[in-house]
Amino acid sequence: MPTVHVNLGPRSYDIVIGSGNLCHAASLCDAEQDDAQTVIITDSNVAELYAEPLATALEELGCDVAVLEVEPGEPSKAPEVAIELWEELLDHGADRKTVIVALGGGVVGDLAGFVAATFTRGLRFVQIPTTLLAQVDSSVGGKVGVNLPGGKNLVGAFWQPCAVLIDVAVLSSLPEREYRAGLAEVVKYGVIQDAAFFGYLESHVGQINDRDPNVLAHLVERCCRLKADVVEQDEREETGLRAILNYGHTFCHAFESATGYEQLLHGEGVAIGMMCAARLAERLGRVDATFIERQRKLLEAFKLPLDVPAVDRDELIELMYRDKKVERGKLRFVLPTCMGHVELVRGVANDDVLAAMEG
Amino acid sequence: MPTVHVNLGPRSYDIVIGSGNLCHAASLCDAEQDDAQTVIITDSNVAELYAEPLATALEELGCDVAVLEVEPGEPSKAPEVAIELWEELLDHGADRKTVIVALGGGVVGDLAGFVAATFTRGLRFVQIPTTLLAQVDSSVGGKVGVNLPGGKNLVGAFWQPCAVLIDVAVLSSLPEREYRAGLAEVVKYGVIQDAAFFGYLESHVGQINDRDPNVLAHLVERCCRLKADVVEQDEREETGLRAILNYGHTFCHAFESATGYEQLLHGEGVAIGMMCAARLAERLGRVDATFIERQRKLLEAFKLPLDVPAVDRDELIELMYRDKKVERGKLRFVLPTCMGHVELVRGVANDDVLAAMEG
Repeated sequence: MPTVHVNLGPRSYDIVIGSGNLCHAASLCDAEQDDAQTVIITDSNVAELYAEPLATALEELGCDVAVLEVEPGEPSKAPEVAIELWEELLDHGADRKTVIVALGGGVVGDLAGFVAATFTRGLRFVQIPTTLLAQVDSSVGGKVGVNLPGGKNLVGAFWQPCAVLIDVAVLSSLPEREYRAGLAEVVKYGVIQDAAFFGYLESHVGQINDRDPNVLAHLVERCCRLKADVVEQDEREETGLRAILNYGHTFCHAFESATGYEQLLHGEGVAIGMMCAARLAERLGRVDATFIERQRKLLEAFKLPLDVPAVDRDELIELMYRDKKVERGKLRFVLPTCMGHVELVRGVANDDVLAAMEG
Repeated sequence: MPTVHVNLGPRSYDIVIGSGNLCHAASLCDAEQDDAQTVIITDSNVAELYAEPLATALEELGCDVAVLEVEPGEPSKAPEVAIELWEELLDHGADRKTVIVALGGGVVGDLAGFVAATFTRGLRFVQIPTTLLAQVDSSVGGKVGVNLPGGKNLVGAFWQPCAVLIDVAVLSSLPEREYRAGLAEVVKYGVIQDAAFFGYLESHVGQINDRDPNVLAHLVERCCRLKADVVEQDEREETGLRAILNYGHTFCHAFESATGYEQLLHGEGVAIGMMCAARLAERLGRVDATFIERQRKLLEAFKLPLDVPAVDRDELIELMYRDKKVERGKLRFVLPTCMGHVELVRGVANDDVLAAMEG
């Protein structure tokens, strides 16, 4: 099976990618260990489809398995839900040797990862992302956390999984809208790091829209490798390099927050945010109209929304100032200079940001 | 000023010990940095005495200072209070460059440290412990966290401070009972690591009870060095070495939990727990009656309570099984073999534990 090795010294791990390999996860959980306890954290949608086969595979290896379910959707990524999970872990007799398995999309991965990072000061955890978005993005890199009413991901930790297992076969059950949302982050990797990969996406639109497993496996592997390249160099977002992964995200986080995390899927917000960032880059003379068109065309081919939500623009600006990436009250943006390359740009004027939000 | 250097590679820091040096803290907060923001987290008792002079000293260096107060006492060490603080940090415009100053006892240090460890995935923080217990124990070593209704310190992180400032002059305002409770942890270091230090304590009972600043400065420095020696070798409690610091604590945590964290101060629970652990060690043939007598005499000289609280013994046993140190359902205890040396003992029978609780 294709494997992406994430090299982080003592915190290194493998991302194993395949099709139909979900139940191989058991071997990643050290289930052979005497009396190993595994707690699967998942949401009720995913549980129905995949929790039982996974739990059975773990139990067959002699593992004590518990399944904790949360409500599907962004509102579960909250400190209050983390408190419930901490207490349920305790009720299930979890201890420091317990392994957490995060089975689900980005919400489950971030939430379960945060619970793993903090319960008894840190449990091992395995990521099994079941959405395209989580497979190419949130399950890689060790960012875990929950939202506050005032902003996304404001509470959390850097806590690396001990393994990531990706089964592209599970994407066949993904609702159309969620699948397309995941493609926004895929396009992002092309724009920020790899022009050739952007070209690959342009030339495989049909197969990608049809969820061809071979194309998907390649696509996921490439995205994980690209993300791992960044994370290996800047694990804790200290040098600024890791920030390039936030292309489109300053806008996106403001859109999500202003619409109460309910109207937009994260990937949809990213698609709109990428268009805003591209227009901002053009305004600042960094890219030309051709760049914007190429990005727009690919996002449109994946049927992603590109219009800024109808909310007060000044409110959006205010929300951007609350973003974690704000340093000493100055907005900063990840902006392209050409296909496959972006830079971190500090001190952008509010007027330019406002103009970039007008399509 | 006496300084204890805690060598943890990239997470190394100094513990600066003095008398009347509280306001030197400003220099530890990088307050010289442009637009530095410092948020002091404290409780209302400590705030009244020390928050203003500290805030003034920081402001004089050009620092933006906010003071967040919590209620004094163990109930503040809760996830719900952490949520309030995260939201208040956001309201004060805190960002990734903000420095948290934990000004208070163990509750404030653990809570503020947990908030620092998790807000935007980690802020720098400075510990300024104002109780003897926090000065000799909880402010050193990077353990931060909050309690769950089901047990103490079940949620948290290892998050090292960037500096610790200890001013023994603030101990003059400490209520008698809290001061004595702190002495329990001081005695603990002698028992577990340093027979000569135990002898020093025996020969300085008078000055210690009178809070002689010179004796206190020596005592605090020695305890910090002894704790740092352990933490440097086992930062994340992985090798078992760090567990020796939990001498008396398995009992103590059960007593605290059974009495709702209100009847006993932590140090009082430690004193009672140390007596139980010593009796357990005697039952298991590890120490003789002379050892128990010597420990009892010193704890009594510091007027610490030594009787197990009047709660159901079976409930206490059940609570011990919920302790984080439980591994795969087996109780383990830190037990002395002679003055200045302890060992981790696994698989102790419940009957022996029950018998050890009978004075």
